Amino acid sequence: MINRNPQLNKHRKLQHLLTTEGLPAEILLQILDTAETFVGVTERDVKKVPLLRGKSIFNLFFEPSTRTRTTFEIAAKRLSADVFNLNIAVSAQSKGETLLDTVNNLAAMDADMFVVRHSQSGAAHLIAKHARPGIHVINAGDGRHAHPTQALLDMFTIRRFKHEFHNLRVAIVGDILHSRVARSQIHALTTLGVPEVRVIAPKTLLPSRVERLGVHVFHDMRSGLKDVDVLMMLRLQKERMQGAYLPSSEEYFKNYGLTPEKLSMARPDAIVMHPGPMNRGVEIDSSVADGGQSVILPQVTFGIAIRMAVMSILAGQQV
Amino acid sequence: MINRNPQLNKHRKLQHLLTTEGLPAEILLQILDTAETFVGVTERDVKKVPLLRGKSIFNLFFEPSTRTRTTFEIAAKRLSADVFNLNIAVSAQSKGETLLDTVNNLAAMDADMFVVRHSQSGAAHLIAKHARPGIHVINAGDGRHAHPTQALLDMFTIRRFKHEFHNLRVAIVGDILHSRVARSQIHALTTLGVPEVRVIAPKTLLPSRVERLGVHVFHDMRSGLKDVDVLMMLRLQKERMQGAYLPSSEEYFKNYGLTPEKLSMARPDAIVMHPGPMNRGVEIDSSVADGGQSVILPQVTFGIAIRMAVMSILAGQQV
Amino acid sequence: MINRNPQLNKHRKLQHLLTTEGLPAEILLQILDTAETFVGVTERDVKKVPLLRGKSIFNLFFEPSTRTRTTFEIAAKRLSADVFNLNIAVSAQSKGETLLDTVNNLAAMDADMFVVRHSQSGAAHLIAKHARPGIHVINAGDGRHAHPTQALLDMFTIRRFKHEFHNLRVAIVGDILHSRVARSQIHALTTLGVPEVRVIAPKTLLPSRVERLGVHVFHDMRSGLKDVDVLMMLRLQKERMQGAYLPSSEEYFKNYGLTPEKLSMARPDAIVMHPGPMNRGVEIDSSVADGGQSVILPQVTFGIAIRMAVMSILAGQQV
Repeated sequence: MINRNPQLNKHRKLQHLLTTEGLPAEILLQILDTAETFVGVTERDVKKVPLLRGKSIFNLFFEPSTRTRTTFEIAAKRLSADVFNLNIAVSAQSKGETLLDTVNNLAAMDADMFVVRHSQSGAAHLIAKHARPGIHVINAGDGRHAHPTQALLDMFTIRRFKHEFHNLRVAIVGDILHSRVARSQIHALTTLGVPEVRVIAPKTLLPSRVERLGVHVFHDMRSGLKDVDVLMMLRLQKERMQGAYLPSSEEYFKNYGLTPEKLSMARPDAIVMHPGPMNRGVEIDSSVADGGQSVILPQVTFGIAIRMAVMSILAGQQV
Repeated sequence: MINRNPQLNKHRKLQHLLTTEGLPAEILLQILDTAETFVGVTERDVKKVPLLRGKSIFNLFFEPSTRTRTTFEIAAKRLSADVFNLNIAVSAQSKGETLLDTVNNLAAMDADMFVVRHSQSGAAHLIAKHARPGIHVINAGDGRHAHPTQALLDMFTIRRFKHEFHNLRVAIVGDILHSRVARSQIHALTTLGVPEVRVIAPKTLLPSRVERLGVHVFHDMRSGLKDVDVLMMLRLQKERMQGAYLPSSEEYFKNYGLTPEKLSMARPDAIVMHPGPMNRGVEIDSSVADGGQSVILPQVTFGIAIRMAVMSILAGQQV
Repeated sequence: MINRNPQLNKHRKLQHLLTTEGLPAEILLQILDTAETFVGVTERDVKKVPLLRGKSIFNLFFEPSTRTRTTFEIAAKRLSADVFNLNIAVSAQSKGETLLDTVNNLAAMDADMFVVRHSQSGAAHLIAKHARPGIHVINAGDGRHAHPTQALLDMFTIRRFKHEFHNLRVAIVGDILHSRVARSQIHALTTLGVPEVRVIAPKTLLPSRVERLGVHVFHDMRSGLKDVDVLMMLRLQKERMQGAYLPSSEEYFKNYGLTPEKLSMARPDAIVMHPGPMNRGVEIDSSVADGGQSVILPQVTFGIAIRMAVMSILAGQQV
């Protein structure tokens, strides 16, 4: 028997959003197209649609992230759902309950959807696998594994500004090794037909055999940025800035920080992206972050529409 | 003059829910019957009724409990109320304000209902006693004293699966001494006419003269479980697992952990309950917790309906 | 070019509420008059109006305050807005993001209004200055600088009980030096035409040259309270009760704590106010706090109406 994609139901419709890996292009495009309809909603005076009225959506954040939790909370409320924020670290888990007991309990309260962030890779998959039928799981970041809504909002942003995927040269710059964002971006970009995806990083911040993901590896930023259409910067976690991975944040900025001078290697109409929060002066210079090629704030705006799209598609599926 | 029941108004209707002790059977049954009407609501596509629209319900959690707070938040939102979560430990109380000042301030914001959890026995009573007319107080657990909504959802679960109370043999197993849940269960069971309520525990985990509550005491679990219809397991707090109360959690599991073998002493159609969160391998074996006689997840589901019932009954009362 | 009041738009309508300093009397009165219409709403059975339906209001609390945050949350929900509570200290800021990046990100999520509390004076101004057009900022307390909604609810309370401002003698008592509340009260009182504003405090708790604000300084409480119509007590922060500012809280109570005896120096119909939370036995005696001249709880009630008024006025403005 085939190990069916755990994200799709038997009709090959989206049942959970766990990773961009293995998602067919038509599902990715369905999400992007649905998000287009919600961009208008968030610009209206009354920013609400009644699509998910009476649905119960749980933000299960085993790893705290006010910003990401807020984006899902906004998306859910604009769909008229009821949202419940649970910071699990401080509660049941510390009382020794297992992850699945916690989730099964919440499911028994007639939950419709779980948005899960967890420091361990695979947590969202585990929950999706054991959840009762009718529950939908959205992965809001699990360990170093995946962060699919971030990758989807990035794809939406690229399509908005570049219109097509099939003629693009895209560079992802920074700590690829520890980044769930980079993994999800690479899978989405290749599935959507981007012909050339580059990763630019020092050797210590690259996974071994990363080429197998279909990317071109550069250690020198200037040659890596040559003629690219899209620059996707990654956040450098503080704990990488010293010790085993990097000598210092200054050294990192010198080699991999995006400055106007390095940006000039890219195509003149290239766009600059960053998932936030930015370390200004570490991975990106302020003049670039706030400059004319930056689409960092539109990414945030589109992120709400993408999350509304994912939630409304999931809520519309039968088991 | 008679010391009137502080939970009832002058028409002997429910004004506050503080404890199951002293509540007449007709009030308990009114809550169970009302909850029946809400079980259907939570299974609907749009899980909302407008009964409490515009009401302001405050979750005042002086002792943190994400799980319990969430159940009340869900119940309130499904009744269309506005809910405000206040974790008081980190705020006004730490600024030296008295409990009653905190509560009076919130009442002055035109609150309708307070859901109170507090580590001190009697806190909810104190608040109910001093609250201005029109405010309703629900005790969500106070010290070792009472946890009436837990007991009520347990009664609801028993009635759902056993239909009647007057022909049942019920055993409560575990740390009776420190358990507000056990106290509230015993009062509810005896008021509803259960003819035989047993408590099963080591001597160190039983209150002195517990027989006065109308229960039969067993120290040996196998004889205590003989022919019972309902097993109500209690959570063993971690801090009891060593030192003065118990030699170790392994020793406890050996004597009082619910295994399939011990369960076989009960009636073959006996149901197994637990208020959660469970310590698997301490007070209950996983094969029992997940087995065919377990009604632990239905308890959780019914808990939402019970809390909706209590809130809607209280909101419907005149002063 | 004139340095235009950053709180007003080009039509001299309220665009942000940052401080009572420099706000024209007609704006203060517009807020008080609008609040009158909302006092009725909060007393109704369904305490909601649909004025802000679909608006997204963010409580950005860089300094925690459950009580103040709750008042804004209540006001927003009674106006049918969607409210998002962000405790920023524990999130993006700790990840090294700048204040403006945090705020610009939230603005990009199509926020309509920010309620900002911050330990640094000027934070709300900074955010208002850099926010994109269409965003409204309400200062919920910044450092020692301003707390305008507190001052406005105090003005509302005074007008409710004293009807006019032009014939009043008002005394503000306590730690003027560190109090953003006192600064905002003084500006509002003088703008509204109160002919005599007194400040009563030990020298160590008065700003230098406080007379320039148009107030009369008293160090002796009994002479300062002589014949006043309104007493506005201030909260004494715990950290002032020892060391450089004051010898002890007992000594403070002896000299500046409001007792029935000291209150008798004021006019017999004088009202007693306090912004809460109170230190009973430090700045105010319980018999006064709970006595017939206290309007401390009505202040809290009116505070909701004032915040509803400010939010609805701001939301109604064009850029």
